[in-house]
Amino acid sequence: MVVKEDDKIFLDRPIFVWVISGLILFSVLCFSVETLPDLSSETKVFLKYSELLIAVIFTLEYLTRVALSQRRLNFVFSFYGVVDLVAILPFYLAFAVDLRTLRLIRLLRLVRVLKVVRYNTALLRFARAIYLAKEELVIFTGMSLVLLYLSAVGIYHFEHTAQPEVFKSIFDSLWWSVATLTTVGYGDIYPITIGGRFFTFFILMIGLGLVAVPTGIVASALSAVRREDEVSCNLEK
Amino acid sequence: MVVKEDDKIFLDRPIFVWVISGLILFSVLCFSVETLPDLSSETKVFLKYSELLIAVIFTLEYLTRVALSQRRLNFVFSFYGVVDLVAILPFYLAFAVDLRTLRLIRLLRLVRVLKVVRYNTALLRFARAIYLAKEELVIFTGMSLVLLYLSAVGIYHFEHTAQPEVFKSIFDSLWWSVATLTTVGYGDIYPITIGGRFFTFFILMIGLGLVAVPTGIVASALSAVRREDEVSCNLEK
Amino acid sequence: MVVKEDDKIFLDRPIFVWVISGLILFSVLCFSVETLPDLSSETKVFLKYSELLIAVIFTLEYLTRVALSQRRLNFVFSFYGVVDLVAILPFYLAFAVDLRTLRLIRLLRLVRVLKVVRYNTALLRFARAIYLAKEELVIFTGMSLVLLYLSAVGIYHFEHTAQPEVFKSIFDSLWWSVATLTTVGYGDIYPITIGGRFFTFFILMIGLGLVAVPTGIVASALSAVRREDEVSCNLEK
Amino acid sequence: MVVKEDDKIFLDRPIFVWVISGLILFSVLCFSVETLPDLSSETKVFLKYSELLIAVIFTLEYLTRVALSQRRLNFVFSFYGVVDLVAILPFYLAFAVDLRTLRLIRLLRLVRVLKVVRYNTALLRFARAIYLAKEELVIFTGMSLVLLYLSAVGIYHFEHTAQPEVFKSIFDSLWWSVATLTTVGYGDIYPITIGGRFFTFFILMIGLGLVAVPTGIVASALSAVRREDEVSCNLEK
Repeated sequence: MVVKEDDKIFLDRPIFVWVISGLILFSVLCFSVETLPDLSSETKVFLKYSELLIAVIFTLEYLTRVALSQRRLNFVFSFYGVVDLVAILPFYLAFAVDLRTLRLIRLLRLVRVLKVVRYNTALLRFARAIYLAKEELVIFTGMSLVLLYLSAVGIYHFEHTAQPEVFKSIFDSLWWSVATLTTVGYGDIYPITIGGRFFTFFILMIGLGLVAVPTGIVASALSAVRREDEVSCNLEK
Repeated sequence: MVVKEDDKIFLDRPIFVWVISGLILFSVLCFSVETLPDLSSETKVFLKYSELLIAVIFTLEYLTRVALSQRRLNFVFSFYGVVDLVAILPFYLAFAVDLRTLRLIRLLRLVRVLKVVRYNTALLRFARAIYLAKEELVIFTGMSLVLLYLSAVGIYHFEHTAQPEVFKSIFDSLWWSVATLTTVGYGDIYPITIGGRFFTFFILMIGLGLVAVPTGIVASALSAVRREDEVSCNLEK
Repeated sequence: MVVKEDDKIFLDRPIFVWVISGLILFSVLCFSVETLPDLSSETKVFLKYSELLIAVIFTLEYLTRVALSQRRLNFVFSFYGVVDLVAILPFYLAFAVDLRTLRLIRLLRLVRVLKVVRYNTALLRFARAIYLAKEELVIFTGMSLVLLYLSAVGIYHFEHTAQPEVFKSIFDSLWWSVATLTTVGYGDIYPITIGGRFFTFFILMIGLGLVAVPTGIVASALSAVRREDEVSCNLEK
Repeated sequence: MVVKEDDKIFLDRPIFVWVISGLILFSVLCFSVETLPDLSSETKVFLKYSELLIAVIFTLEYLTRVALSQRRLNFVFSFYGVVDLVAILPFYLAFAVDLRTLRLIRLLRLVRVLKVVRYNTALLRFARAIYLAKEELVIFTGMSLVLLYLSAVGIYHFEHTAQPEVFKSIFDSLWWSVATLTTVGYGDIYPITIGGRFFTFFILMIGLGLVAVPTGIVASALSAVRREDEVSCNLEK
């Protein structure tokens, strides 16, 4: 197997993993509550101290990981090492920077959530399927982008004269393309001319096909990976 | 086979099954009609007596099932035994509790509908496919939740200053995430800034991929289960 | 093969099939144009004579088919015999009935469109896949209906007090369920309470899974049918 | 293999391909910016000269390709030859035609984007899957169109009297069909009668199934193509 096993340290025992996951979720909840308008000063104080506590715990965890790993530099520059560092840095940086950009830096703190990924290895089969279908997915993405742009140009041509305030430029038309081809359809921008409506229908027929394709590609790749596993399983027996 | 056959009693004959199913549907219809405003008093009386009759029939059915089953306690604490009991309890409890909470208890009566499940065994293949793909589905659900939250934070950052009344907090942004990533798009909350729209496009490209994945997983697992069945079928021959 | 070949008569030659298909499409177009408000009297006369001509041609075709088929009664009561008859009957019945119900009868004329189905046999593989997955599709449909109803009851409970004019009864809530779980999301009816929004999220997570399942079932069944064909193909060689 | 290798000329080297792709994207961006209202005259001049430069480069590229290809006429009338010509023609034609139709001709310039397709051969497997499932996809498209029309007629029947201004004719109803069956749901046109809502539910149950089918078809065909490749791979070994 290509997968390298992590060093088994006490921080990777189930009980620690669950406590850390709980803290991550709590920290995310605090971050969300902070955005609520009209918070009482008690809540603000509570949130501030919660954040302090979490930052301390995560820092201790990070330092322990560095200390316990056999090749320290390797850990620091590994994917998980960087994620762990990024998860605690925002707290310390927040003190040095002004308040407006602070909010932007805070977004980085959300990467803590991504640490959940760490504790799961069943993702591998899925990753292999994605790798197997990589080229087809790139082609699909490219074709989708081209279709998005072409449909924006088309609808601009049809609707600009009828609704100059709604379909102002190709950039506004692109927003329509996104909302329509993903079938979200907010209803803030839609065609009203016969030509525009017919064009929408035409584009959607192609667009829904494009959405169906990656689904088929992923399903097909997953089937292939599963079959491969069965064969290698039989051979081992 | 792992499936244990139910005790064949006369209550499981097709004719009874259809009558009971019909009564379940009728009871559900009555429950729905009750919520209509401006009902005549005749209708109200009719609904009341219908409910009484159905409760009596279901009680009799339950008691007969208990009486006829060989291991009574096993039946009472089995999944179907509990469902049957829960389906009749609301009627008797409704007399003892006040009217407002009554409505909540009534929701339980809908579990009657779930009794339909009882009469079908073809679900097993599907259940096996779900079991086979269990871990991948858990991962997918986790990734979806993370994406939902990250997109809520992102859109809050982009739209809060432009629409402070619409994107009030991260919780309102979460509602936008749900409506957008599921492609429902009610149109009550949507981005208007260039940054927010570009972010929406970006998130939707990832989000639609996430929706495509479980479809592929389920399709792949169902294929595997079907192939397994064919092989075991050939071996039996 | 199970497929029975049709009697080869000159009416099934490509040239006739295309002419008849063209007439069907023209007749459908006429029917649509008739619903436009403010038609000139010339157009109305033209539409009237077009319909007369099409009815005459279709009647002649039907009579020829009956006359040329070896077992006439078999043809008259076959699926295509009935479809052909239903496609011309509305024209003759329209004279005897009053104008309001006439419109309803006219809907039947659209069955003409279904005649297109006649000229294609590649549908068989698809039909076999549907037949193979029949039971699973029935279960899925049942589960979807139950979920639709349960979500209607749930949202009624959460939103009725907050929006009594929008979520009037369970029937209005059902309309919300349909628009939401199919991800159409018109935006005429949506939750505004925190509980209702959370419930919507929860229901959509389950609902989108339900949508993914039949896709997987159909894909899996089509794979099985295709594999079957390949095996029987190899055996024939 | 069926695939014919292109003549290897220096214009197909990676460095040239990337430069040309970049110019295509830049040209598309310019075209979009041109549609913005209130452009400064400096921007207009810049855009004009950019377009001139791109047209010159693409013309030179085209002429070089013609000159270097061994069978020149074959290249000129090949798919890529025509695409390359169409990508530069709009610039020269724009001088001869008046301004209003000019905008229409400009749309053709977007075909330049399609040149991206040229530089990728992984599309072949996907093309083979589409070819394999061709007949089923045609049937599906036909059935979708019939369903679209039938649902338009149905909703017209149910809603015309209740909303004569919204569901004016079958053509407006068709717009509703498109927006609903693709689950876009802009919210500009939706049923309000009980019959219309029930009909919508019914049509959506069938319609979502239709959307699931092509996904399954493509997935199944891709699986077959992948299996074929594996088998031929093993045989070569």
